Amino acid sequence: MTKTSDSVDRPLGREAFEARLRAIGDERYHDKHPFHAMLHNGGCTPMQVRAWVINRYYYQSRIPMKDAAFMSRCADPDLRRMWRSRIEDHDGGVEEGGGIRRWLKLAEAVGLDPHYVASERGILPATTFAVDAYVRFVRDMPLLDAVASSLTELFAPKIHSERIEGLLKHYDFANDASLSYFRKRLTEAPKDVAFGLRYVLDTATTAERQAAAAAALTFKTNVLWAQLDALHSAYVEPGRIPPGAWNGTEGLLDVQARDVA
Amino acid sequence: MTKTSDSVDRPLGREAFEARLRAIGDERYHDKHPFHAMLHNGGCTPMQVRAWVINRYYYQSRIPMKDAAFMSRCADPDLRRMWRSRIEDHDGGVEEGGGIRRWLKLAEAVGLDPHYVASERGILPATTFAVDAYVRFVRDMPLLDAVASSLTELFAPKIHSERIEGLLKHYDFANDASLSYFRKRLTEAPKDVAFGLRYVLDTATTAERQAAAAAALTFKTNVLWAQLDALHSAYVEPGRIPPGAWNGTEGLLDVQARDVA
Repeated sequence: MTKTSDSVDRPLGREAFEARLRAIGDERYHDKHPFHAMLHNGGCTPMQVRAWVINRYYYQSRIPMKDAAFMSRCADPDLRRMWRSRIEDHDGGVEEGGGIRRWLKLAEAVGLDPHYVASERGILPATTFAVDAYVRFVRDMPLLDAVASSLTELFAPKIHSERIEGLLKHYDFANDASLSYFRKRLTEAPKDVAFGLRYVLDTATTAERQAAAAAALTFKTNVLWAQLDALHSAYVEPGRIPPGAWNGTEGLLDVQARDVA
Repeated sequence: MTKTSDSVDRPLGREAFEARLRAIGDERYHDKHPFHAMLHNGGCTPMQVRAWVINRYYYQSRIPMKDAAFMSRCADPDLRRMWRSRIEDHDGGVEEGGGIRRWLKLAEAVGLDPHYVASERGILPATTFAVDAYVRFVRDMPLLDAVASSLTELFAPKIHSERIEGLLKHYDFANDASLSYFRKRLTEAPKDVAFGLRYVLDTATTAERQAAAAAALTFKTNVLWAQLDALHSAYVEPGRIPPGAWNGTEGLLDVQARDVA
């Protein structure tokens, strides 16, 4: 969070400021991480795909808590109304579930016991540190910063499209059912981010606020990048799995047992 | 934090419980991490040593904040009195400074501008996520868990001795002045940890509390391990330095300029 020159200057115009925010994605979004490329071009082993699913579950599971933390600080019913659908999207109803349950469908498709994944055992500590930092950022920082940190969704449709295409092409487990999480996000995320972007452009009316919003978005790209770095470090050769983290054997579905059940 | 069988059983006796805590160090303390071995056997490049100094500074700088967070929750003056010296050890007085200033002496000895290191620029995001998680753990969790998380100091004298010996043997920058941080910790840490261990053994009188204390100490070993993992991932070949993190060129001391000053 270095002080940038424009923090003492006049604010950027609306279009220039949006371009500045988008440039952060061009430089730092996790679609630039080598693990992303490995995953999408079929270079991941089953163990690496599973490690990604186990760890990314922790992120998914904390998103509605993050959104509730945000709403707990909004005095404006209009803002809460706009935000509420994010929690609904992830949790859904008792019967049909939402994004989290769709993630567990993916877990099952890659051969993981969804109960094991949902138990949060075996998650890399670095994953929990990064994700928890995000939840606390949204709980503690000014509302503008909190909304700005959600703007990584500006860059998400591209990564989700690449994921669907790459996974379908390269992995047997990939089909419409197992990838329903990503397909659903293709319609959910643009609605959320359109509102978030408008809020940030409307609210960041000084150079100082623009710098804070850019720093918040940068922080969020770090949260995402650190998660792929931790996966890469633990599970890509040579691989250093930290003590206590998933070692590739726990929580596997016993397919035979399932077939006869 | 898995539920262990003894959490529904009788508590361990005092000696057996202490042995359980020490076993966590045997299995998970960061002296088992390959970066530790590289550092102490002379296998680190100057850039790797500097990256370690820059990132470990962030940990050092947060320790007194962590201790203040702890004391802010202690209603007992005796407990606060016992704890106060930790802040004194790290901050010292205006003139002579304390552990943090000694760390900056080490930074200077390895060729880093101490102002750059103290600016906290270039620190790996994963370092800040892990360290901030520790400060917040101590701020949010029961006092027993907070004290138990400090018990990694049980294992610190060994690592500090190894550091002094290994660094003196292998690196030109190492001498009594540059390593004063570690030498000082050899006398400070045992006093702190003797109190902390007694507090934990006295307070964890049920199996459930013993499990919580063990989980807290495990959490802290994860905080330390994740920091070395992030360093290894970023700065050991092949090395993936995250966007915005120190790239080996910023903050270097211009020795010639210093010599003529």
